[in-house]
Amino acid sequence: MTTQRRLRLGAFMRPATIHTGAWRYPGAFPDANFNFAHLKRFAQTLERGRFDAFFMADHLAVLNMPTQALKRSHTATSFEPLTLLSALAAVTEHLGLIATASTTFDEPYHVARRFASLDHLSGGRAGWNLVTTANPDAALNFGLDEHVEHGERYRRGREFFDVVTGLWDSWADDAFVRDVESGTFFDPARMHVLNHKGENLSVRGPLNIARPVQGWPVIVQAGSSEAGRQIAAETAEAVFTAQTTLAQGQQFYADVKGRMAVLGRNPEHLKILPAAFVVVGDSLDEALEKRARLDSLVHYDSGIASLSIMLGHDVSGFDPDGPLPKIPETNASKSSRERVIEWASRDKLTIRQLAQRVGGYSGLEMIGTPAMIADQMQQWLVEEGSDGFNVMFPYLPGGLDDFVDKVVPELQARGIFRREYEGVTLRENLGLPRPGNRFFKD
Amino acid sequence: MTTQRRLRLGAFMRPATIHTGAWRYPGAFPDANFNFAHLKRFAQTLERGRFDAFFMADHLAVLNMPTQALKRSHTATSFEPLTLLSALAAVTEHLGLIATASTTFDEPYHVARRFASLDHLSGGRAGWNLVTTANPDAALNFGLDEHVEHGERYRRGREFFDVVTGLWDSWADDAFVRDVESGTFFDPARMHVLNHKGENLSVRGPLNIARPVQGWPVIVQAGSSEAGRQIAAETAEAVFTAQTTLAQGQQFYADVKGRMAVLGRNPEHLKILPAAFVVVGDSLDEALEKRARLDSLVHYDSGIASLSIMLGHDVSGFDPDGPLPKIPETNASKSSRERVIEWASRDKLTIRQLAQRVGGYSGLEMIGTPAMIADQMQQWLVEEGSDGFNVMFPYLPGGLDDFVDKVVPELQARGIFRREYEGVTLRENLGLPRPGNRFFKD
Repeated sequence: MTTQRRLRLGAFMRPATIHTGAWRYPGAFPDANFNFAHLKRFAQTLERGRFDAFFMADHLAVLNMPTQALKRSHTATSFEPLTLLSALAAVTEHLGLIATASTTFDEPYHVARRFASLDHLSGGRAGWNLVTTANPDAALNFGLDEHVEHGERYRRGREFFDVVTGLWDSWADDAFVRDVESGTFFDPARMHVLNHKGENLSVRGPLNIARPVQGWPVIVQAGSSEAGRQIAAETAEAVFTAQTTLAQGQQFYADVKGRMAVLGRNPEHLKILPAAFVVVGDSLDEALEKRARLDSLVHYDSGIASLSIMLGHDVSGFDPDGPLPKIPETNASKSSRERVIEWASRDKLTIRQLAQRVGGYSGLEMIGTPAMIADQMQQWLVEEGSDGFNVMFPYLPGGLDDFVDKVVPELQARGIFRREYEGVTLRENLGLPRPGNRFFKD
Repeated sequence: MTTQRRLRLGAFMRPATIHTGAWRYPGAFPDANFNFAHLKRFAQTLERGRFDAFFMADHLAVLNMPTQALKRSHTATSFEPLTLLSALAAVTEHLGLIATASTTFDEPYHVARRFASLDHLSGGRAGWNLVTTANPDAALNFGLDEHVEHGERYRRGREFFDVVTGLWDSWADDAFVRDVESGTFFDPARMHVLNHKGENLSVRGPLNIARPVQGWPVIVQAGSSEAGRQIAAETAEAVFTAQTTLAQGQQFYADVKGRMAVLGRNPEHLKILPAAFVVVGDSLDEALEKRARLDSLVHYDSGIASLSIMLGHDVSGFDPDGPLPKIPETNASKSSRERVIEWASRDKLTIRQLAQRVGGYSGLEMIGTPAMIADQMQQWLVEEGSDGFNVMFPYLPGGLDDFVDKVVPELQARGIFRREYEGVTLRENLGLPRPGNRFFKD
């Protein structure tokens, strides 16, 4: 067992908290999604806790949920990622700032510019979470009647990545000489015109912004499909993924890192960070009580729909305060169905309690004392389930404060998490190399 | 003569300084375009000077200039507006933040979201400078071989405005009830689905962000063409324009405000702000010396091309250190040509000096002591040439510091400029009404 490897920790911050009941938790800020003062506080706390990055997921539409569930959710509306992270850049010094942008519903010139601008503003702390946008409702907000088909989205996404990185390479790192004496602001021989004409995109260039501080902002992916794994192995430097068990995590980890080896990429140059929902207590009982209280704040209307979907069976007709009856096998995801049925029997939950748990959050969770949580994180790290986690806080600010004040010192004491930031840029802190410029040698 | 009317002052900040020689001026920051610390200093100085707004123009391509001129210019590259202004929102409290976004090369859902997000981040200080993008090189960066024709751009622009403002009205101001007790986050009856299907655009909505603090960010226009004046009269709340003489300014002012009256709009609800290049000295001679020194820093290669264009006649073959010979009439803009010829004779300039002046900046300028500059500004205000100015600083930080420390107190002493911000939002400071929501009554 090596003690050299260290955890990388991102914070999943859009919405500010993912749990559907979080905004109702005692002490929470129900208006956090549109209150910059709260977001600033969260970011500064993450920085105090030496987190690698603030991660901002995104949606290009109001989520498609039944109105009875939607109206109870704080997840439908939020700040737009690039504007929020730019503002946070001005009030933090070390924290990485990772924003989602879509390759299906945006233009590579815009995306290249905005991330380059964020990288300059923040002194090299930007990351781009490249998504092809799976939500079919987004298409309707961008002039299309039907969603773009999966394979077409991925082909465009791959070409989009080439164009954006090509635009970032428009200028050599030393192009801007700014020689006051001679009056030469830049060296035209150190500017490259991309002239890209491909299957999906046609972009001339050059970008009207200097090469990013990091060369390229850190490239992040979130898809876990076959196409998503392949594009991640080819291009990503961090992957945010949903893996609910260590065994699943290990399978995913081995698969993606194996693909990298086939491609000749160093597997160290991509960090795999599954989402983890962390509830901290001074005792296991206290943590479980927090979780039960949080779940109790999920409205039954929101939960029962989610539960029926996960079971592949409409359970809204059963007594909410009775136990879950035997559910026949269906074509719902077998692992989801079995997990939910196991929860019901293990924790002796009524249908209402089960619905509230599923409606609140249903992915990988770590619940317990700081030592118990550190044990789990360490096990995933050591047994190659992940390189770290994208942490989801159960409620804010309490869940975040608990993590930073109690779990982080435990991880530091074990030597598996930094006490100080190692470098200046996000790339340096993550231990990733700075990409060379494809058009100019140093 | 009324003393009630007050000047509105914007600061033209992209590039940070417009004058081609500014980056070479003693004490200037040559790297200001990509150094956030400098931009933060400028914004905080503007706020100390009680400026209404920081105005960020934009280009969607590297400017199309001959390489010999381009390589000497600091104006080709800069931060992207929305990211920069979001960062500045976090380090200022009162200053308005006006960014340019294109209706030809962007999507209304993105534009509506980003400006709404900036408005929430800044507590109601955002403004949108709506442009249709005249630069034909931009088209090549967005998948088009040819530029979109002027009339088509304006038709799309008008529809784009309707869609963006319709998306801002997606939610009633009181939609987000966030009732912790009942678990209702928002009232679905207070959400509106736009379902826009027009000639150029199809956008469903709703926007996934609450209605902006200001209802709508302040609507700004910059076009001065016939179509531009009409769309401004219909939709704008501030107009940035280039008028080089008071008489021209008065004609433009009367024309646009007259169009508003025809449309039934209150002419007070649009502020006309011509660009003004201001050079301050403790004496007129000192100010003229600063201007001459600044012009001397414009490279002859940059200047001679601009001069030939303004004269409609290639003058690069003449002796640079001789006087301007008699230039035949051409089809160049008559007013530009005459202005340049008048400068040459009035100030006894050589061709080199004339080229350097024209290559540096050739619009409306105000040069002299603080009292002389205040006299001119007051005259424009009182004689209805404008409602204020979009100030261009000759070099930074010196030109800005001089304006704030010397001109602003003079304007305040005359009672034509604020000593304290009147309100919280940009709209309140500009004296503009908050737009009602077209879909919901209060």
